[in-house]
Amino acid sequence: MRLYSLFIGLVLTLLCGAAGAQDAATWIWAPGDFDIWLSNRMQVQRVERDVAWPPFWRMYSHQPQVNFMRRVDLAAPEDIVITVEGTYNVAIDGRFVHGDQRHIRVPAGRHALNIQVYNPASPPAVLVQGTTIRSDSSWTVGPRPNAPTADHAAHWHFAAPDDPPSHYRLATREVRPVAVERDAHGVLVDFGQETTGFVQLKNLIGSGRVTFYYGESREEAMSEEGAETLDNFTVAHHHRTFAAPTSRAMRYVRVRADRGLRFGDVALQYEYLPVTHRGAFRSSDDELNRIWDVAQRTLELNTREFFIDGVKRDHWIWSGDAVQAYLMNYYASFDGDTVKRTTWALRGADPVDMHINTILDYSLYWFIGIRDYVQYTGDTEFVQAIYPRMVTLMDFVLGRRNANGMLEGQPGDWVFVDWADMPKDGELTVIQLLFARSLEAMADCAALAHDDAKAATYRGLAADLKAKIRSAFWDPQRQAFIHGRKDGKTNPLVTRHPNMFALLFGDVDGGQADAIRRNVLMNDAVPKITTPYMRFYELAALAESGQQARVTREIKDYWGGMLRAGATCFWEEYDPNVQGAARYAMYGKPFGKSLCHAWGASPLYLLGRYYLGVKPTQPGYAAYVVEPDLGGLQWIEGKVPTPHGDVAVFADAARIKVTAAAAGAGVLHFASSTPPRSDTGTIRQAGDGRYELALEAGKSVVVERR
Amino acid sequence: MRLYSLFIGLVLTLLCGAAGAQDAATWIWAPGDFDIWLSNRMQVQRVERDVAWPPFWRMYSHQPQVNFMRRVDLAAPEDIVITVEGTYNVAIDGRFVHGDQRHIRVPAGRHALNIQVYNPASPPAVLVQGTTIRSDSSWTVGPRPNAPTADHAAHWHFAAPDDPPSHYRLATREVRPVAVERDAHGVLVDFGQETTGFVQLKNLIGSGRVTFYYGESREEAMSEEGAETLDNFTVAHHHRTFAAPTSRAMRYVRVRADRGLRFGDVALQYEYLPVTHRGAFRSSDDELNRIWDVAQRTLELNTREFFIDGVKRDHWIWSGDAVQAYLMNYYASFDGDTVKRTTWALRGADPVDMHINTILDYSLYWFIGIRDYVQYTGDTEFVQAIYPRMVTLMDFVLGRRNANGMLEGQPGDWVFVDWADMPKDGELTVIQLLFARSLEAMADCAALAHDDAKAATYRGLAADLKAKIRSAFWDPQRQAFIHGRKDGKTNPLVTRHPNMFALLFGDVDGGQADAIRRNVLMNDAVPKITTPYMRFYELAALAESGQQARVTREIKDYWGGMLRAGATCFWEEYDPNVQGAARYAMYGKPFGKSLCHAWGASPLYLLGRYYLGVKPTQPGYAAYVVEPDLGGLQWIEGKVPTPHGDVAVFADAARIKVTAAAAGAGVLHFASSTPPRSDTGTIRQAGDGRYELALEAGKSVVVERR
Repeated sequence: MRLYSLFIGLVLTLLCGAAGAQDAATWIWAPGDFDIWLSNRMQVQRVERDVAWPPFWRMYSHQPQVNFMRRVDLAAPEDIVITVEGTYNVAIDGRFVHGDQRHIRVPAGRHALNIQVYNPASPPAVLVQGTTIRSDSSWTVGPRPNAPTADHAAHWHFAAPDDPPSHYRLATREVRPVAVERDAHGVLVDFGQETTGFVQLKNLIGSGRVTFYYGESREEAMSEEGAETLDNFTVAHHHRTFAAPTSRAMRYVRVRADRGLRFGDVALQYEYLPVTHRGAFRSSDDELNRIWDVAQRTLELNTREFFIDGVKRDHWIWSGDAVQAYLMNYYASFDGDTVKRTTWALRGADPVDMHINTILDYSLYWFIGIRDYVQYTGDTEFVQAIYPRMVTLMDFVLGRRNANGMLEGQPGDWVFVDWADMPKDGELTVIQLLFARSLEAMADCAALAHDDAKAATYRGLAADLKAKIRSAFWDPQRQAFIHGRKDGKTNPLVTRHPNMFALLFGDVDGGQADAIRRNVLMNDAVPKITTPYMRFYELAALAESGQQARVTREIKDYWGGMLRAGATCFWEEYDPNVQGAARYAMYGKPFGKSLCHAWGASPLYLLGRYYLGVKPTQPGYAAYVVEPDLGGLQWIEGKVPTPHGDVAVFADAARIKVTAAAAGAGVLHFASSTPPRSDTGTIRQAGDGRYELALEAGKSVVVERR
Repeated sequence: MRLYSLFIGLVLTLLCGAAGAQDAATWIWAPGDFDIWLSNRMQVQRVERDVAWPPFWRMYSHQPQVNFMRRVDLAAPEDIVITVEGTYNVAIDGRFVHGDQRHIRVPAGRHALNIQVYNPASPPAVLVQGTTIRSDSSWTVGPRPNAPTADHAAHWHFAAPDDPPSHYRLATREVRPVAVERDAHGVLVDFGQETTGFVQLKNLIGSGRVTFYYGESREEAMSEEGAETLDNFTVAHHHRTFAAPTSRAMRYVRVRADRGLRFGDVALQYEYLPVTHRGAFRSSDDELNRIWDVAQRTLELNTREFFIDGVKRDHWIWSGDAVQAYLMNYYASFDGDTVKRTTWALRGADPVDMHINTILDYSLYWFIGIRDYVQYTGDTEFVQAIYPRMVTLMDFVLGRRNANGMLEGQPGDWVFVDWADMPKDGELTVIQLLFARSLEAMADCAALAHDDAKAATYRGLAADLKAKIRSAFWDPQRQAFIHGRKDGKTNPLVTRHPNMFALLFGDVDGGQADAIRRNVLMNDAVPKITTPYMRFYELAALAESGQQARVTREIKDYWGGMLRAGATCFWEEYDPNVQGAARYAMYGKPFGKSLCHAWGASPLYLLGRYYLGVKPTQPGYAAYVVEPDLGGLQWIEGKVPTPHGDVAVFADAARIKVTAAAAGAGVLHFASSTPPRSDTGTIRQAGDGRYELALEAGKSVVVERR
């Protein structure tokens, strides 16, 4: 068997020719173009009932013209086939190729190829298929032929001439209703759980007008005046099956048709991004297991062309929401491509004249999300590609500092932080902490992009700012960060927000961290956080402080509460004190609440990072720790994806079993009240009943402890 | 008749309602968007034979999303009709209008209207038709609803719901051939003169492939291997008439069709921008009159969606060419709209990462062209609209100064100046003079845009630079500007280029001007200028020095030479020493030369400004001089357009007659060897046999002189 494989490999190598020949050609385009174009296409589909509602922030276009360039050195003439999306010409060494522009012979020797492509409708893109000359990321792209500065071409998974980037669509498959109710006025269809797709009417007879009222709840679908999304169509008699042209989110759809139009069947073309559930979690608590599953479904539905905030509303890309989805994703599907697409789409192009999503904090999260991405994936190529747009956004941010070098809302900025009722003008401590973290992210990314001068500048700015934050906002008496300062006057209010970020970002020493945990996080006198959005950070900060048992109780209470209320995905917001259809109201609208909201899936991150305890300590899991924590459960087990395969973990009070990733320096951290034993490796004492054991790549280890 | 008109006017006023109601609604869009979109559509149509050749510089897109905003204060509710190009919503006071999005009732009182429009295909545009609420330049546009900073909306002449901006096409009318020759292989059609349009085949029978070989000369059309432009089509039998979908330039077209395809007739849908020939010139010299007419035809053909360089080649917008076309236009058609469209199109959008057309000098001409535009038209609204893009381009230019504060070519820059053989690296004197002039233009425009701080900055930069230029490049011994400096070493070469610009821009005192005229312009030892492009400035500088008689000889020699060689429009370049078909070669290609090139039309400017002698001295002809110069001719007469009607001039040795414009303070300047007399007004002596006479607006005056 082994010999046979080797032989096949040899044959393939011979068939495919020289080194590198095994890499297939891919469609290529200018970095960011596909993502901007696709995000426009997706986001403008939002409606509020019958009103189109494109995003209200600056929208950019892809570049209408791009030159694709490659230098080649050929031993023999080579025939290449060029497929292009756009109007184009091909130049070899600066001279146009005349005649057949698709099948071209490149002469032997050193040559510079340039393909100039204009396409206002979709990103200029090319596919070049030859024996050794193939379009891939080794090509460069620029705004003019032989541009003096050029970027590496971007690509994804489009490899065939008839599969160009502009044809991209999510996958679909048919889903059948679980229940259909007919009454005198129409049909109510229940798909059994939250879903997204194109509603289909089958076996049509006649013609007329039909309206789909979509509902995440039965009540919403039945409310013709209140349903957040609806579509009107006029269906002609020559259709046998009618499919809505736009995908919508729903569990239910109510169909009302003119008397002259009858249909036999309703189905759904479920529309989805195929993702692999690499992450897994099981425990001794069935409710927690169900919470993991529903969280996974929630994140999966919101993982589409991009990470969106909610499948019904807004179906837009929000930076603050996305940066949390990224972290959940690293413990669920480890889908780096969707992180990259989302990062490009949020950023758009230049020039920058407003914050991402118009929100000050959302610009800052964007930088932090890129640093997180490198830490989990190790993909420095992406950082190098997006670094120029990081610089121009940071230039915009730096240009809006006040006289103290701090950020506060300027005219036109939205300072969001949280839906919580708190003062948001002036210098907020939490904003300065996010700003310092952004500057650190810039410094790290500048270093990866080999821009050492700017790396030093950003590092210096971050250090200065952090010193200013401590001096202005750390209250040494109360041992906590205060809320902020306005017009030179400090606001002594203590909120959870700055304190939990300071703890998560490691901006405090051990004593301060303990104080924050005691005085703020565990202090019921400090106003509670009510949105799942900020509870993500609050629960992470508690877990970071070793309070997993409390986190378990909070998860079972809040997320378990949603399940008990009938949720099939997790909601934008949940208040156990509200009952019945009133639960679905938000933003002053009876069904304004999103019932499938990405930020509702945060248990994925909490359970993966703080229970299974797997986290990278060097970019791309070159080094990582595994520090399982039962959080009050009898046992836990699961898998955490890494770029080098999964890390599998089982733990109960007496035993830990870890299977390490296929590469990377993993270390198991654990506690034991008596000296522990392992079946392989050497356990090292770390003091205070803590122990460490180096993991062997790709191997399993079992530790016995008490 | 008069009473009847008044009555009709009264009825219309009553029908249309209150103040301002006489202004019709127009389609509106964000400034620059239409021009960028239309210029992309036009410029990408260029081909080199069968190869598509879009411009090689950075191309921009229109903004895909624009918000249109208007505050209203209504005495009574008002019904408005909204027509939109794009996906849109309407909000009144921040709340969406549901239901009918086209027919909307705005309630009485104060309200903020916002129309959010997304359109990736063509500029987001709206037409709002109501009784008092109408889309026009009083609306503002911004990237987000209720944007804190917003621009005034742009518009042109689109006023009907079914005439949106994206439907814009040039006018067409049928032109018949003057001769048709048939041979065994095809048909050669002669339209009698240079023209542009869509070739049509009529009375088709059969089907098959047809090729059009276009020729500005008979030789080009007959050269299947050499014709610069050609189109291949497959014509199906169900066509009775086939029209080429793309407009091309030609005098001749050779049609070759498959044997199975026959056609009865060939015609042309001539494609043109309707312009009015407001300017006129006649003189005692018939050849000069013919030169005026052919120059007018040449400019007219190149005045299209934009001012282009040549109708065959490049059919692109070049800044250096355009700034000359603007000046000719002010003496021919006074078509300000085409100047504005061209200025927007050349500039594109932000960010700026290369010079206009990639050419350093072409960025500089762009600023100068805007200052010229204000001087001739007085349109300060345009300056205010485009000023932000002036600032960002100047920021780009200023960022590329060397340590001396001067401009020299950077990697990726094309330093053009002229096709002449001269060193173009390092600090060229001519470039610094253009740079100083650009800074002065910026200062003037900043003042018009009420940006006093920047006005002072630009003014200071210009003064500093001019002092540096004099100190570095004025040779006091030779009394002329030298060529430039490279790596700190001056190049003592004396060329015409910097000297003629210094003279035209008024950067020298009277003694220096005399010296330049004597030592450079009239000095045959200084290398001749061979391109009509730079002869524009050379002849203007000669005329500015009172050398009209020499200019007359030069025009008759050079432009007259082209006429004698059979030109029906003026050429890109003309060398009387080259004979036969070799005259059509350029750029290493047998028919590479453009035979209808805008810069060939410069006699329009020279004859209007320096013979009829009409020139504004304050923006928009608020003040102007009329200084007729016979240039060795027995008599001249003509008209020069202004924003306040035409100025009509007749002059011979004994008599000058001027009819002043309907407004503006005109002054007649003239010479007379004996005391002159006029039939009205008071003649004032200006010394040296020169006299001045103030003109009365709208009135004629006759001066007798010797």
